[in-house]
Amino acid sequence: MGSESDECCRGDGVILGVDGGTTSTVCVCLPLFPFSDHRRLPDPLPVLGRAAAGCSNYNSVGENAARVTLEQVIAEALSRAGKDHSAVLAVCLGVSGVNHPSDQERILNWMRGIFSHHVKIYVQNDAVAALASGTMGKLHGCVLIAGTGCIAYGFTEDGREARAAGAGPVLGDWGSGYGIASRALTAVVKAHDGRGPKTTLTNCILESLGLPSPDEIIGWTYADSSWARIAALVPIVVSCAEAGDEVAEEILNNAVHELALSVKAVVKRLHLAGKDGTDYFQVVMVGGVLEANKTWDIGNKVIDSVLKAYPGACPIRPKVEPAIGAALFAWDSMMKETEANGHR
Amino acid sequence: MGSESDECCRGDGVILGVDGGTTSTVCVCLPLFPFSDHRRLPDPLPVLGRAAAGCSNYNSVGENAARVTLEQVIAEALSRAGKDHSAVLAVCLGVSGVNHPSDQERILNWMRGIFSHHVKIYVQNDAVAALASGTMGKLHGCVLIAGTGCIAYGFTEDGREARAAGAGPVLGDWGSGYGIASRALTAVVKAHDGRGPKTTLTNCILESLGLPSPDEIIGWTYADSSWARIAALVPIVVSCAEAGDEVAEEILNNAVHELALSVKAVVKRLHLAGKDGTDYFQVVMVGGVLEANKTWDIGNKVIDSVLKAYPGACPIRPKVEPAIGAALFAWDSMMKETEANGHR
Repeated sequence: MGSESDECCRGDGVILGVDGGTTSTVCVCLPLFPFSDHRRLPDPLPVLGRAAAGCSNYNSVGENAARVTLEQVIAEALSRAGKDHSAVLAVCLGVSGVNHPSDQERILNWMRGIFSHHVKIYVQNDAVAALASGTMGKLHGCVLIAGTGCIAYGFTEDGREARAAGAGPVLGDWGSGYGIASRALTAVVKAHDGRGPKTTLTNCILESLGLPSPDEIIGWTYADSSWARIAALVPIVVSCAEAGDEVAEEILNNAVHELALSVKAVVKRLHLAGKDGTDYFQVVMVGGVLEANKTWDIGNKVIDSVLKAYPGACPIRPKVEPAIGAALFAWDSMMKETEANGHR
Repeated sequence: MGSESDECCRGDGVILGVDGGTTSTVCVCLPLFPFSDHRRLPDPLPVLGRAAAGCSNYNSVGENAARVTLEQVIAEALSRAGKDHSAVLAVCLGVSGVNHPSDQERILNWMRGIFSHHVKIYVQNDAVAALASGTMGKLHGCVLIAGTGCIAYGFTEDGREARAAGAGPVLGDWGSGYGIASRALTAVVKAHDGRGPKTTLTNCILESLGLPSPDEIIGWTYADSSWARIAALVPIVVSCAEAGDEVAEEILNNAVHELALSVKAVVKRLHLAGKDGTDYFQVVMVGGVLEANKTWDIGNKVIDSVLKAYPGACPIRPKVEPAIGAALFAWDSMMKETEANGHR
């Protein structure tokens, strides 16, 4: 493509960003910014269209449901922007559950079915969208996401990457909302059958779920396999900890330890803090577990723990949502590719 | 019914015992022993027919699959015994996942559809079948099952009962085969992403699963929701612990702690060890995790821990399978009901 047709396309062309989490999926449609300097990005960013839908992690809801959710949320965001699929120049999908090249390939194939071949399609873990929402599209630094699931992901300026956790509930994501809540439910069961200390979690959780007795917890837990349904109990655990319940406090302290450990593992592997461990680097903090903003603030405690090991860590709480981060990543990547082609 | 017709029925009549575990389901068909004295039971017990099938825990496989499995395994055991459903006088189903009166009611309704109204039907947790396999039908003492799942269940002579654990993988059954194996998989992920120490579990598990890299563990774990598939990795964890791997040893020590804690919670709540905690009581030990019979013997370590708290605990490793325990429970319960009716 010549530069003339590029400019022409860009006038009407749009970029899409998709944030596919374990609880919900959001797609935003932005105009293509015809420059590559992040400092020139308008504030606030113009969002032409936005749509939201349910979970698109196919480990949780299955392949068909995940695919339909992604296709529908994209179609709806375009429709609200008054655009159709042919206006799309680039799209970045940051989807939880993408852990492997074969996962990327699967979603890429779904997208190849709805976009023409010249569209730039980037498929990433949802951590990439979250990081980009704090760095306005650039992949550099570390992001910690703790919502229903949790993951720490880091990138160096020269393109190396590393991740920790993000392995789902079976594989020890104890800092996630699901991990915290399942430990709280376990504490209720253990208090009831004599294996653990009494805890105020029992009455608070039973009341919240409308269950008459701890005997009903097992049936409730397995009645539905949704991870988000379990994770929704996190605010109760935080309330109980704030009221001084030691069992709840121990669960949250353990979550803080696990989350901080994930960040530190990524920073160490990528040498993000430099040789002596004191260099400046950004830690983007995303997700409901870290946004509690209460007396018992999980996010602040994680940062405190990271700062003890790496005093140059700079926490960032993004001002835009991860879907916009995904769109900015698509824009940044596409501009870099265009520039690289232009320099050939 | 008069005693004459009772005797007549008993000549041809049979009793069924079903052990419905998380991995497999077994049904046995025994003749009705026309007496109620356990000491008169023949040794070995005559088994007229036996059949095995897959999982019948509906929390794991769903209601329809569980129901079909139970109906088929019963029909096959009867067919192999050369009997039909009309010969059945009593049946006991000990099924994992039965935690609540509504669970019992559901399975009872399934059985009412295939047996006529005069058949005695007992629906219990599979722990009851396991205990009865060690006590030859009597419900007294404590049973610890640790296979794919785990549970401790206790009964007093006057009919009180208590249980601990048996809450499934989401609710902290860390002493189960699933719990041990999922912690081992977690240790591999943590070693790989820098959150945990190196462990020989990594190479041993990857080799066993035919996976080229720890990156593939997440995909393998969520590709199939069967709990038994995960639990099948327990022998690898035991081998690694025997070879001195500290991570594997810590996982097994934690499992021993959790299993012993379950037994002790039940014994304490039921006062099975009497007022001063030294009375004799039986602990029936069942399930693959406890039957390892290796250098690193989980079952023996659990018993050691229980004996420290309750020196009167007497471990029993049953000589018959749990399905026969279920059949003996059906026989024992039916004879007691008949005697009680006769005394009216």
